[in-house]
Amino acid sequence: MTKQIILIGAGLSTQSLVPYLKSKLEMYDWNLCVLDKDLATAERRLGEVNERCSAGSLDITDTIALATALNGAHLVISMVPAHMHLSIAKACIAHKAHLVTASYLTPEMRALDLEAKENGLVFLNECGLDPGIDHMSAARLLDGIRADGGEIVLFESFTGGLLSPASEGDNPWRYKFTWNPRNVVLAGQGGAVKFIQEGKYKYIPPHMVFRRTEFMNVEGYGRFEGLANRDSLKYREAYGLENVATLYRGTLRRPGFARAWDSFVKLGMTDDSYTIEHTNTLSFREFTNLFLAYNPHDSVELKLKYYLGIPQDSDIFTKLQWVGLFSNQTFPFTSGTPAQCLEYILKQVWTLHEEDRDLIVMFHKIGWKKDGELGMIESSMGVEGKNSSQTAMASTVGLPLGIATKLILTGEPMVTGVQMPITAQWYHPILNELANDFGVIFHEKELPYAGY
Amino acid sequence: MTKQIILIGAGLSTQSLVPYLKSKLEMYDWNLCVLDKDLATAERRLGEVNERCSAGSLDITDTIALATALNGAHLVISMVPAHMHLSIAKACIAHKAHLVTASYLTPEMRALDLEAKENGLVFLNECGLDPGIDHMSAARLLDGIRADGGEIVLFESFTGGLLSPASEGDNPWRYKFTWNPRNVVLAGQGGAVKFIQEGKYKYIPPHMVFRRTEFMNVEGYGRFEGLANRDSLKYREAYGLENVATLYRGTLRRPGFARAWDSFVKLGMTDDSYTIEHTNTLSFREFTNLFLAYNPHDSVELKLKYYLGIPQDSDIFTKLQWVGLFSNQTFPFTSGTPAQCLEYILKQVWTLHEEDRDLIVMFHKIGWKKDGELGMIESSMGVEGKNSSQTAMASTVGLPLGIATKLILTGEPMVTGVQMPITAQWYHPILNELANDFGVIFHEKELPYAGY
Repeated sequence: MTKQIILIGAGLSTQSLVPYLKSKLEMYDWNLCVLDKDLATAERRLGEVNERCSAGSLDITDTIALATALNGAHLVISMVPAHMHLSIAKACIAHKAHLVTASYLTPEMRALDLEAKENGLVFLNECGLDPGIDHMSAARLLDGIRADGGEIVLFESFTGGLLSPASEGDNPWRYKFTWNPRNVVLAGQGGAVKFIQEGKYKYIPPHMVFRRTEFMNVEGYGRFEGLANRDSLKYREAYGLENVATLYRGTLRRPGFARAWDSFVKLGMTDDSYTIEHTNTLSFREFTNLFLAYNPHDSVELKLKYYLGIPQDSDIFTKLQWVGLFSNQTFPFTSGTPAQCLEYILKQVWTLHEEDRDLIVMFHKIGWKKDGELGMIESSMGVEGKNSSQTAMASTVGLPLGIATKLILTGEPMVTGVQMPITAQWYHPILNELANDFGVIFHEKELPYAGY
Repeated sequence: MTKQIILIGAGLSTQSLVPYLKSKLEMYDWNLCVLDKDLATAERRLGEVNERCSAGSLDITDTIALATALNGAHLVISMVPAHMHLSIAKACIAHKAHLVTASYLTPEMRALDLEAKENGLVFLNECGLDPGIDHMSAARLLDGIRADGGEIVLFESFTGGLLSPASEGDNPWRYKFTWNPRNVVLAGQGGAVKFIQEGKYKYIPPHMVFRRTEFMNVEGYGRFEGLANRDSLKYREAYGLENVATLYRGTLRRPGFARAWDSFVKLGMTDDSYTIEHTNTLSFREFTNLFLAYNPHDSVELKLKYYLGIPQDSDIFTKLQWVGLFSNQTFPFTSGTPAQCLEYILKQVWTLHEEDRDLIVMFHKIGWKKDGELGMIESSMGVEGKNSSQTAMASTVGLPLGIATKLILTGEPMVTGVQMPITAQWYHPILNELANDFGVIFHEKELPYAGY
């Protein structure tokens, strides 16, 4: 029987997913319908149409339209913003369709577990890159160590969406936006960071996150700094790491990124809680001056260096100057939060050029204990994008969703209910296909135990 | 006719208010009823009972009990926590009783304006110290300059609740709690600080507030540092300062306080958003270590100094050591937020001893322009408490409420409705009585204009 796949949300992250699905339609007797709020986006994403695929527009807040769209669907891939998944999930239950997403599993989604099971449905969440490939590669390593009689004593895991060295040019940050710029600007905000080091709980206040980094080398890709995620303890139970002495999850950037970014935080430019009026009358330079003490004689540059204690010859200042913090360019909008203004400034220099190639790097460090002996495994993965339309980010987010879709619709009967891809039924086939067909390969290295 | 005054809430801030009211009962034919959630607190506060005064208990969440208590009341003084005023205000309308509070005027309270007016009632808010005496003394100065044909170009206003130099001893912070410790620990949190300097808007993120201070001398009381309040622009309209070039409101501390307090902020110890478990197994020293990187060899002291960049010979470290951050004392409670733990640590050393005397200092700096000429007035006030049972804080918060009560019940008919004491009907008689009878005296000084 022909099976109907509905993809809702046709943003950048579906760049690789749609071609993947299209390439399988004939073979597996699937139809694909790509829906987006904006019809042109859906059509552009789908590209060439044939009798097995179509594009359409859908406003998911319109419950009747949503129900109509899901009529006859076997599986829905939801790529809408995270807070919109729930209504789609409920419609999936009503229409008995499986659901696959790359977003964080919420308590509201988890509450649908029983209903999903009763209807024989798989609701797979966090099946993109981070969360997604990080879970799968970590779970595979952890299960391997445990199967071998080992006990886990240390777990660190880092992922970064960066720029290929080939595309860095003279960019002193060695970074561009390869994902939602707003999320990058707001990163590190919210509650305190919590993790465990050698059995001791550790806390970092949000405004100090960019000052507490650790460095690491990832073979083949060079040196990086790791910044703590807010949620290091979040997967403690899911990963079975209740007794681990060190548990740390984080984000990778090139060394020096965090210290320079900390300047934005200290100035208050990442604040999204209040609105500055008349931004259209402000230059980037005047925007910067809003956060510095009044003095009619000193330059904005000197006031900033003095306030933040940045030495004259520091690369931090070079980075701030390079992004245009002191430029006379103006904002096109009439009002905005500091974070929105900063995002606009950064977009001028951090938007990928057509030929730019991005880079995804993932790094796990796992310590184990077996028969009284300690050991350590480092596992690393790097993928480069081809250009700004075929990014490594879109491949690593989208392909796991595509492969999961294939597993649900064609493979062995999968365990049903609300879940993450941390069991072998998911991680083996998905990681294998990613490695064999798409070059997403993890390199593992045994090391003597060094602790945190 | 005998008039009934109901005081709801008999906390520390009513130390001076109750004796003030008691001393007037006979003269003005008033009765006073002091109510508190806790009967013993109300009785202790009232002291000696006679036929004109009584103490009782009241749970203000019990609407029937509240209605019974307000039966026959002419005026209610509400000293309960700020968020509880509204139900009292509504009951005041039902019982046609005036209302006086020392708390910030909320939009919900303001919405009762018409109803209060229709019932001929005065609902006076922000009539304590800060807010209260700051409004009154500022408004008197501003009105005086304007009456003389001047225009206001600069307005700065600072208040501090500190320690009399006589009671500082070897306390390197020159500070103790003279008000709700929890509010002191949480100060500076929430949104960004906003103010205007020489016509330019300025913003400070909350975590940098303790690094952006200015120094000032208050004649007779020495040198202080001023920290920006979050709400400098809040009274812009109320004060008629829409066109002023500099508008800055703040809090006074002794120099060096803010830099040392900034260490708590940087460590994350003022965070109130998450709970640390098993605090009863932690020493103050181990609590401090929660916020420092793991290292089995280095001392907590050195890790802290290194992390915060505190030089070996700095007074900041002396202050942190003095409050007990490295002590082996333990917490008596089983769980708490970092802010609750810090409050407990500070209470060990910052609680007033019986003989300790507190100090209230207020300082205004107002710039004016008249006939093309610029000038400046500094106005300062200082009051010392007698001991920990008769604090300057309690006098300056409570006496304005008592005097306002007298004005409403005995004086000229006052303008009705929801208001703050920023009009001459309030500030003249209240400031005069405070000066003549209680030594709360403002000293004014004309200076050449110096700008911000």
